[in-house]
Amino acid sequence: MPATYQPPVATMRFLLEDVLDFDAQMAQLPGFEDASADLAAEVLTVAGRMCADRLAPLNLPGDAAGSKLVDGKVITPPGFAEAYAEFVAAGWSGLAGDPAFGGQGLPRTVQIMLDEMVSAANLSFGLFPGLTRGAAEALAAHGSDELKATYLEKLVTGEWCGAMALTEASAGTDLGLLRTRADPRDDGSYSIIGTKIFISSGDQDFGNNVVHLVLARLPDAPAGVKGISLFLVPKLLPGDARDWTERNAMSVGALEHKMGIHAQPTCVMNYDGATGWLVGEAGRGLNAMFTMMNAERLFVGIQGLGLADAATQAAVTYARERLQGRGADGSGPVPIIAHADVRKMLLAGRAFVEPARALAAWTAIRMDVAERHPDPVVSAAAHADVALLTPVIKAAFTDFGFETTVLAQQVFGGHGYIHEAGMEQFVRDARITQIYEGTNGVQAMDLVSRKVTMEGGAPLRSYLDMIAADLAKADPALTDPLAAQMRDALALLETASETIAAAAGDTDRLGAAATEYLNLFALVSLGWMWLRILAASPALGATRTPQAYAAMARYYATYMLPRTALHAARIAAGPEPVMALDEELF
Amino acid sequence: MPATYQPPVATMRFLLEDVLDFDAQMAQLPGFEDASADLAAEVLTVAGRMCADRLAPLNLPGDAAGSKLVDGKVITPPGFAEAYAEFVAAGWSGLAGDPAFGGQGLPRTVQIMLDEMVSAANLSFGLFPGLTRGAAEALAAHGSDELKATYLEKLVTGEWCGAMALTEASAGTDLGLLRTRADPRDDGSYSIIGTKIFISSGDQDFGNNVVHLVLARLPDAPAGVKGISLFLVPKLLPGDARDWTERNAMSVGALEHKMGIHAQPTCVMNYDGATGWLVGEAGRGLNAMFTMMNAERLFVGIQGLGLADAATQAAVTYARERLQGRGADGSGPVPIIAHADVRKMLLAGRAFVEPARALAAWTAIRMDVAERHPDPVVSAAAHADVALLTPVIKAAFTDFGFETTVLAQQVFGGHGYIHEAGMEQFVRDARITQIYEGTNGVQAMDLVSRKVTMEGGAPLRSYLDMIAADLAKADPALTDPLAAQMRDALALLETASETIAAAAGDTDRLGAAATEYLNLFALVSLGWMWLRILAASPALGATRTPQAYAAMARYYATYMLPRTALHAARIAAGPEPVMALDEELF
Repeated sequence: MPATYQPPVATMRFLLEDVLDFDAQMAQLPGFEDASADLAAEVLTVAGRMCADRLAPLNLPGDAAGSKLVDGKVITPPGFAEAYAEFVAAGWSGLAGDPAFGGQGLPRTVQIMLDEMVSAANLSFGLFPGLTRGAAEALAAHGSDELKATYLEKLVTGEWCGAMALTEASAGTDLGLLRTRADPRDDGSYSIIGTKIFISSGDQDFGNNVVHLVLARLPDAPAGVKGISLFLVPKLLPGDARDWTERNAMSVGALEHKMGIHAQPTCVMNYDGATGWLVGEAGRGLNAMFTMMNAERLFVGIQGLGLADAATQAAVTYARERLQGRGADGSGPVPIIAHADVRKMLLAGRAFVEPARALAAWTAIRMDVAERHPDPVVSAAAHADVALLTPVIKAAFTDFGFETTVLAQQVFGGHGYIHEAGMEQFVRDARITQIYEGTNGVQAMDLVSRKVTMEGGAPLRSYLDMIAADLAKADPALTDPLAAQMRDALALLETASETIAAAAGDTDRLGAAATEYLNLFALVSLGWMWLRILAASPALGATRTPQAYAAMARYYATYMLPRTALHAARIAAGPEPVMALDEELF
Repeated sequence: MPATYQPPVATMRFLLEDVLDFDAQMAQLPGFEDASADLAAEVLTVAGRMCADRLAPLNLPGDAAGSKLVDGKVITPPGFAEAYAEFVAAGWSGLAGDPAFGGQGLPRTVQIMLDEMVSAANLSFGLFPGLTRGAAEALAAHGSDELKATYLEKLVTGEWCGAMALTEASAGTDLGLLRTRADPRDDGSYSIIGTKIFISSGDQDFGNNVVHLVLARLPDAPAGVKGISLFLVPKLLPGDARDWTERNAMSVGALEHKMGIHAQPTCVMNYDGATGWLVGEAGRGLNAMFTMMNAERLFVGIQGLGLADAATQAAVTYARERLQGRGADGSGPVPIIAHADVRKMLLAGRAFVEPARALAAWTAIRMDVAERHPDPVVSAAAHADVALLTPVIKAAFTDFGFETTVLAQQVFGGHGYIHEAGMEQFVRDARITQIYEGTNGVQAMDLVSRKVTMEGGAPLRSYLDMIAADLAKADPALTDPLAAQMRDALALLETASETIAAAAGDTDRLGAAATEYLNLFALVSLGWMWLRILAASPALGATRTPQAYAAMARYYATYMLPRTALHAARIAAGPEPVMALDEELF
């Protein structure tokens, strides 16, 4: 049996209270004055129990059963429908939703901590509320009052589910190539015709409506991305009786056969003249989608973090119980956690998870500030931080997350390759996070071609200055050897940032540098969070946690941060080593 | 549909003929005087056709169907039994087998090239002849004349299959913990009682006998590894009528539910008083197993190489066909092979596969020399080279191999996550190669605790001197910038080797350094092979291959070889960053 998942609520509370100054930050935000680390911990304790006790036990059987398509109907694994109903009834779907539409009105910071626990417990499940929230946010930002009045509360509360229909067989990263049509009708609605693939939560058997947001082209639309509009297309239509029992002309053509997230019904969706309504302006569909892209991409990064934590927890438990080999003194068999090679695999997980959770929370706080702070200058600066960090968290957390699940699986030896141990599922599930919501390569291009140079580079400058300021005041007794190495690493990031800024418009140079720069940026950012965790750790008093953090940060400084030099050297090498080979000679 | 596999026979021929001086080396070996690159290429061309046309098409459907256990009988996927029969009839099973027992008597070097193609085409299938060969080798080295007379020809030809039964639920890496019993009977046979897990090719429906080599304990055996003996336990017994229809008291308890190699029936085997015969001396069972461990571990490394090549081939094909995004000049959509980020993923594959194939062939030639050279000094030196390189190839090729399949899958974007594209299967299948036949962590410990210091370090010294000699004579026009970087990397390996040698007996220091040292060793070794490939590439004349090799080697020098500095720095940091954290604080 897979190990039990332990919700990391105590750590989350420490991060909010001692590392990130959550209460003081929220106090400045209208509507969040009463939000506090205390409240967050209270909420997350209850939510964590649901994740550990209800969602985690469905994860492995859900993988084995998978979602099925039977006579055109999606059948989710046993227990999923009931768990979803409980999740909604407890208010978890609308945790950060607008109270005007049935939400709980808590900060996003609390939401992403819930997201981490849900993802750790059951990634396939987490995509139902996750996609629903995405649809709600796009609708809230761009929908007409009439559409909002009809659909928004149902989505915010999670009573109905949402899905985002973007990708087509020949239009993935490059959505400008999409072909789905939207023909206007006399009544103001549109007839949607086309086929979409990879549609997470496209349908299920929860007995509710599924509201699709679909990208499509109007008949007179120009080619490329400027011809794309967004449409709301519900599975069930109100009908003349307004009883929402009329089926829209849309169907699940197939479920994708995937490497992982088997419990999640990833659909091929056919829209056969389905009724839809325009969301936002015609031709501005991509724009409307990107409104909620930051939040969705941050969510995917969090998924990588959650899976990494769950896998590392399981590996630590196993490494303490499994007896093999001799200890340094020749006695044995000893628990394999005694072996240096096993410890390295576990430490790699912990050294990533702890600062990653802090960086995610830092970014979520900036999102809350961006959305709520009354001073537009403060708000804009926070918004820029979020824009800068979003591709970094999406890509780096999912790359590190995948690597972490692989290492955790390796700790189990042959048993890790067997389904029943649960470790190979973590690896298969984690793999999708590097791909969906924009592949990690696309994230890296976003970072180097847009984020680094936005507003003349001011947000990046301000971010790096913040790290430098924390470094300047770092207490060597608490933070060395990390602080010393961070100075070198930050200097590398400064230089690389200049290189990237100077390469603006040079597609090949940016493309060759993109992933290297993103990783360099992430490693420095995680190191920065380690500095802040170490600086705050005396607040934990005489517990043994500060000692643990010091050892994990030291591992980070010795084993992980030095990768920065490698990335910096590759960036300095320029595009020639990548572009020299003729396409036909590969 | 997955891309077609192209057997790399032309490259293999170039390696044998121009890089590794195969003909001259074989000419010194009694029995191999007529072996030549010409002959090898001829044989491999025919074998490659079988791999591409017969085995590769069964790979994806074999994964989908999987092997099943129905009423205690193993059912392999459609086509496997027929393909196995063809494989045996064509003589591929016994390619390097002893002609006295029905083998073809070709060098191991040709065998490992066949192994690469079989693994690339269908890893699950390849484990049938692979395990059979392992069993044959152990029997040939340690079996009595009577056992050999009865079983060896059947195994060498592949008419019967072989399996190796080592692991138990609580005895994996640490075989000293195993509990399976062997009680002597009056007729000289033994009654084998116990349960083994993870038994590849434990049974099938090919209509033949399956000869198990089982590790077990005699009643009076001491605890630990010295109490382990090896037994031959056939599925079918000769019986009084000598017609081989009597079932032995052994059965398949279950098939393991695995992450990958689904077509391969990995068995839980129950031996319920099964009849077996001692192979070799009592108490020397592990020794007998390790006779063929070098060959088996080299084979697993080759599997990583084969999968990496197959996955990279498929990714290159896809990257040429898939249109997304704009080119550097703004035109588009363009084939994604135009994008720097995609090129990097493909180049990482090619930059590994080409020198890895060369290093595998170099090592296999050393095996042939070790087994056949009439001068015992020459033979012993070759044997030491093989012992040194075996853990490196097993671990590094499977780690790089796995990484390569992940990158190749990433090239496909969302499509890579879908079963039908075949890419996610490569990833799942590759994952086992890092685990079985001794996890890669175990390989690294073997390297640092035994191989570096064997014979007072002489084999390592001689290996490093060989690389230094090739570097000294490297033509800058052909080999820069690689040669320049190789000088630094070799110096790091020299220093790290001294550190490892000085740490003999210090389990924690060796354990913390092990994987780092193995990777450092592998990166320098692959760089060395790139040097030799570049030096030999003028022999390819006016083809475009030399230009391609130069670009791939440059990528290797810029992106991959610099990892050596990271590994060296971690080794220099010593064990403290790994050992400092208390076990209970993870």
